Amino acid sequence: MDKKDVRTEISELGEFGLINHLTKDIKLQNTESVVGVGDDAAVIDNGNMKTLVTTDLLLEGIHFDLTYVPLKHLGYKAAVVNFSDIYAMNGTPKQITVSLGISKRFSVEDIEALYSGIKLACEIYGVDLVGGDTSASMTGLTISITCIGIGEEQKIAKRNGAKENDLICVSGDLGAAYMGLQLLEREKSVLNEVDGATPKFEGREYILERQLKPEARKDIIKILGEKGIVPTSMIDISDGLSSELMHICTQSKTGCRIYEDRIPIDYQTAVTAEEMNLNVVTAAMNGGEDYELLFTVPLNKHEEVSNIEGISVIGHITSESLGCAMITRDGSEIILRAQGWEHY
Amino acid sequence: MDKKDVRTEISELGEFGLINHLTKDIKLQNTESVVGVGDDAAVIDNGNMKTLVTTDLLLEGIHFDLTYVPLKHLGYKAAVVNFSDIYAMNGTPKQITVSLGISKRFSVEDIEALYSGIKLACEIYGVDLVGGDTSASMTGLTISITCIGIGEEQKIAKRNGAKENDLICVSGDLGAAYMGLQLLEREKSVLNEVDGATPKFEGREYILERQLKPEARKDIIKILGEKGIVPTSMIDISDGLSSELMHICTQSKTGCRIYEDRIPIDYQTAVTAEEMNLNVVTAAMNGGEDYELLFTVPLNKHEEVSNIEGISVIGHITSESLGCAMITRDGSEIILRAQGWEHY
Repeated sequence: MDKKDVRTEISELGEFGLINHLTKDIKLQNTESVVGVGDDAAVIDNGNMKTLVTTDLLLEGIHFDLTYVPLKHLGYKAAVVNFSDIYAMNGTPKQITVSLGISKRFSVEDIEALYSGIKLACEIYGVDLVGGDTSASMTGLTISITCIGIGEEQKIAKRNGAKENDLICVSGDLGAAYMGLQLLEREKSVLNEVDGATPKFEGREYILERQLKPEARKDIIKILGEKGIVPTSMIDISDGLSSELMHICTQSKTGCRIYEDRIPIDYQTAVTAEEMNLNVVTAAMNGGEDYELLFTVPLNKHEEVSNIEGISVIGHITSESLGCAMITRDGSEIILRAQGWEHY
Repeated sequence: MDKKDVRTEISELGEFGLINHLTKDIKLQNTESVVGVGDDAAVIDNGNMKTLVTTDLLLEGIHFDLTYVPLKHLGYKAAVVNFSDIYAMNGTPKQITVSLGISKRFSVEDIEALYSGIKLACEIYGVDLVGGDTSASMTGLTISITCIGIGEEQKIAKRNGAKENDLICVSGDLGAAYMGLQLLEREKSVLNEVDGATPKFEGREYILERQLKPEARKDIIKILGEKGIVPTSMIDISDGLSSELMHICTQSKTGCRIYEDRIPIDYQTAVTAEEMNLNVVTAAMNGGEDYELLFTVPLNKHEEVSNIEGISVIGHITSESLGCAMITRDGSEIILRAQGWEHY
């Protein structure tokens, strides 16, 4: 929880009071948002665009650990990961609803901090907060966000459209969010054991930011749109490259080959992995939470996508019978497996 | 939890396996639902209709008690209360997304039971399940449902449109769900104290059903539509008549007068209140969870609405300066207060 001098108990405001307090300064930015917070339902006018809907549930102790995640960052991330799902359809996020379950441990100031992160994300990405639900909780913090967006019918990129010989592309770099998490976990256990220890984060700002304050790739969607490139399939990388590639290939009824030496990895990610005796390619393949875009384009777009900064071509789609595999640096094939992030 | 002979641990299926298992037989019913479960976002085509969005978070120990609520009923109710919010905008629910947080206490069969209730509600109300999220939880069951619907721009009924002299109408009867809850709580404590006791529910089926398996008033919206009556304001009664009336009057900047003797109360509700030494009007005013519709219509619609079965005219809208009050049977005025359901 964020430390503050003031602590206002939520019981002082009550349920309606808290909602009103948190939402009273919200101004709607999008003409599509006709009615926002304060009625039985929000009203949205998407004209002749298609409506996109995605939802995400975040539970304390499962998806986040408040000992090292500030509430403002948590709010920002909770919103951004939903925007990412809309971009992954080649759409534009326009509205969110936010439902919170809040235990007595949290003060009004804590929830303000959480909301300030959500509102900041909305401001930066041009999204309206149009509704939600706030309730007491017996245990910890629950955050459920639904995001509504728009997309042009002919440009919506699903998971099932990849075709043989399509190029497999990925934005940004992978494995950094996972290495950031490893670093936070290591420093947490040091802090628990050694009194007065200070965490060692110098030179690791990038991977920490990737874990604590990820961004959705609005910029990549914009560039693809400007260049008239419509991905044949697309997904965002929340569970690791391997798992997401499997989703695309399963739904498209194809196989794939990707090349180990083409997987984009940042210097800090590599150094931290080395230091911690972890395999950096495994971090990129199975780590997750990168929120980069994984997509396929027709072979004839090779030059165009290769010239876009921040996009790497990492392989190609094959027929289904060839299966999904990674070609290692020494030329051998490793069969891909969906090692998504499974809590059970 | 529902008792079953078979108990399959959720870990046997994993996160993706569970989602697939629960959603594999889902068929989309509405032409508006273009892409359902299985992509980053659902795709919806609402043509030239407005899109309505509402969301609800249900937490174990706060909103439901599994010692007396069967999981199938819980699923049904969780879906229906969201449909009710869309009807309360004079709209039609079309899609839902369902996010679940599930602790180890629950088996695959338990979650199947919950889902079967959600699917039944979807079938009866013509709604498609188009997405969601399933996750482990440290503690208990979390259910977050978002419902998307459509409405005609000129017919959407908000909370802020009530005008002086409008008639205040309510569907069905009030207080039954609350008395059903009191009965369940009483029998639960008897069962805890007396070994081998059996609950006494004979002749109380109606109020139990109102609590455990409420319905949304699709029928009332249909009749109003057929008669060409567009409510000037509307809300569904989830927190009690008093609280909902205050929402309409506050947002419409009006006052109101309602009449105690016109508040519709069922015979079983009255008898149970009498038996438990509770004031039945208080149950109707503050009890909540009735999911009836509270709405206002212009004065000239008096005859038309009065002739609709299942609608009671209980009062009228006044100027703001007169405040909100109930006229009791003996002619005195009681100032209304929002005694919503506040857990903090």
